[in-house]
Amino acid sequence: MGIVVQKYGGSSVADVEKIMKVARRIVDCKKSGNQVVAIVSAMGKTTDNLIKLAGEISSSPPKREMDRLLSTGEQISMSLLAMAIDSLGEKAVSLTGPQAGIRTDSKYSKAKIVNIVSNRLKKELENDNIIIIAGFQGETEEHDITTLGRGGSDTSAVSVAAALNADLCEIFTDVDGVYSCDPRIVPNIRKLSAVSYDEMLELALLGAKVLHPRSVEVGKTHGVEIHVRSSFSHDIGTIVKKEVLDMEHDGLITGIAHDKDVAKVVIFGVPDTPGTAAKILKALADENINVQMIVQSAQIKNINDIAFTCSSDEAREAANILEKIGEEIGAERVVINENIAKVSVVGAGMMTHSNIASRMFSSLGENDINIDLISTSEITISVTVDIEQCEKAVRVLAEDFELVN
Amino acid sequence: MGIVVQKYGGSSVADVEKIMKVARRIVDCKKSGNQVVAIVSAMGKTTDNLIKLAGEISSSPPKREMDRLLSTGEQISMSLLAMAIDSLGEKAVSLTGPQAGIRTDSKYSKAKIVNIVSNRLKKELENDNIIIIAGFQGETEEHDITTLGRGGSDTSAVSVAAALNADLCEIFTDVDGVYSCDPRIVPNIRKLSAVSYDEMLELALLGAKVLHPRSVEVGKTHGVEIHVRSSFSHDIGTIVKKEVLDMEHDGLITGIAHDKDVAKVVIFGVPDTPGTAAKILKALADENINVQMIVQSAQIKNINDIAFTCSSDEAREAANILEKIGEEIGAERVVINENIAKVSVVGAGMMTHSNIASRMFSSLGENDINIDLISTSEITISVTVDIEQCEKAVRVLAEDFELVN
Repeated sequence: MGIVVQKYGGSSVADVEKIMKVARRIVDCKKSGNQVVAIVSAMGKTTDNLIKLAGEISSSPPKREMDRLLSTGEQISMSLLAMAIDSLGEKAVSLTGPQAGIRTDSKYSKAKIVNIVSNRLKKELENDNIIIIAGFQGETEEHDITTLGRGGSDTSAVSVAAALNADLCEIFTDVDGVYSCDPRIVPNIRKLSAVSYDEMLELALLGAKVLHPRSVEVGKTHGVEIHVRSSFSHDIGTIVKKEVLDMEHDGLITGIAHDKDVAKVVIFGVPDTPGTAAKILKALADENINVQMIVQSAQIKNINDIAFTCSSDEAREAANILEKIGEEIGAERVVINENIAKVSVVGAGMMTHSNIASRMFSSLGENDINIDLISTSEITISVTVDIEQCEKAVRVLAEDFELVN
Repeated sequence: MGIVVQKYGGSSVADVEKIMKVARRIVDCKKSGNQVVAIVSAMGKTTDNLIKLAGEISSSPPKREMDRLLSTGEQISMSLLAMAIDSLGEKAVSLTGPQAGIRTDSKYSKAKIVNIVSNRLKKELENDNIIIIAGFQGETEEHDITTLGRGGSDTSAVSVAAALNADLCEIFTDVDGVYSCDPRIVPNIRKLSAVSYDEMLELALLGAKVLHPRSVEVGKTHGVEIHVRSSFSHDIGTIVKKEVLDMEHDGLITGIAHDKDVAKVVIFGVPDTPGTAAKILKALADENINVQMIVQSAQIKNINDIAFTCSSDEAREAANILEKIGEEIGAERVVINENIAKVSVVGAGMMTHSNIASRMFSSLGENDINIDLISTSEITISVTVDIEQCEKAVRVLAEDFELVN
């Protein structure tokens, strides 16, 4: 007897038949003697359709209203799932993010969970109800609904698991676990049986879509073990946890992430005075622009170029902010390049093996893949390449670091 | 400068183009110097589609979940309308029923508004915002969302107008006012320039779909004048108010209502002991079955038949309740007849003219229309007829009572 938190993504509840399947899975878990809390995403293409509808009304809809609009998608699927469970003879109650006590900041469209007021959840579990929660949403102090950004349902699930001190947090998805790289690019790639929070966080931040980075952070902070698995089978997937024994790792590196949905923004001719870079980055952070790689290079004396990457859909906004601040500080110009991709290798092994960077750069060079920006962290090396060469780069590295079966 | 509450029905916001039209109308009202609160229904067929989806999951979905599901329809249209207003350069904020402070009882699917906590509304008006409220919904004390039943957005609007002590409450609909009877049946029927709360209430209760009966009740209780008008023109519609001067009325009766969506339920052989009828009616009321006409007739000594009408979609549930209670009290059997319609004449003039009933029955008789049940109130006479003869009955009475142009 334990508390199990499960999260089902949009493809798992895409139609009535799939909703019934998910309902049966939840009921099975309940009948095994567990208290079950399920977090659910919007059905299939619902969110995309709502975005399209809003686009027909306004080219720049207010973010508050956009969040209000999008939050309905999860509220539809949660109600239908609760009905499906009821039709199987079990008691279920659906709760919106606000009803589930999920409190966030007020950064609409990418709000962060501040805390979870869990009274209602505990009451419903005491009443022997299965709880279905609308993922991807919460509310501000002023009771306005917010969304957590794409993939935010993962974060809803892990946060709820932490708040309830759950025994298990299962993320059901349309793949059967975490792979060393995208199996659509390298079909014989190895599935990971376990991965550490830090490695998973890097993989997620670097573009692996299987888990939302925030969810991994929350898991790490609160020690929630996350089981990533397929909603279409009963196979064991990948466990994300604190430490992964060496025996569980087969190679020097754990995975290769890539991200085509990335743009490079460069601000040229920035006067090299103390605090300028900080000023630029603060302006971006204030608007919640998620800056990834940051590279500063001095072209001529006292003048720097600062390049960074961010997600493609934030590039235009980032450039606008930089143009404004550029005028203030006397920079030359701002250029966006969306024709790039980011490829990264991740592995805790890097901390004890120094030759990984050189091996990575040689592999790419020998295969005529040109490297643009480079940035590194303790367990990651990222490079940007031409978007056309992204998949080739992933394949070359997967072979070279022996991640294939 | 005043507070104007407007309500736009589903056909007024059926697509993006219509939403833009409504937005322009609201902005015009605001620019004339008013504070505007708009209540909005779900877009076109949204509610029907959600009901269909739920039907594919379960033949009897829990009412709580059904309310949760249906409430998303209005939340979509309110967000889109707020975006549309924003795109026209005016500040707008959308609020769900719960956010607007609309508190209801917990009778899911036909909840009643208990009160409106108007702090948030007043704050948004002070901030010079146009407020868009999702109609048809509120929340219980436990913060669970409820819906007010079909047509409930009218009630939302009039209740909000009462809570804000609004100067004007406009109900925009797809017809241009209240007619003496359905203009689809009698094309040259007269439009009413004004109608009293009591008459409108009877017309609405008796099947005129233009205003929800509860909204008229609320208007009467709080003295909110209601202007029913077309969302497709700027013509004056019909004013619903306390007293209508004789000069504003042209005939003996104000209108003729009809309702085909009605069923007769008869419980035969009820022992005639004190309190039995009350017991039956209480059982129905406990399940929120809306009983309309009630006729009791003694067939043989100490044995009664009790017949009543209710809406068709409640007939099966009503019969089930009666069969259960029938066993307890020793009644014979329960029969449903859905093949009937109700036709009613309404008019305050009835209180001073005694010959209206006889005139009505003669007109119908002379035209070979057979009358089944009869019931009367101070300002109403209702009869049931065969459903096939309903429209003929309306036409005959409209001619006879001189309601046509």
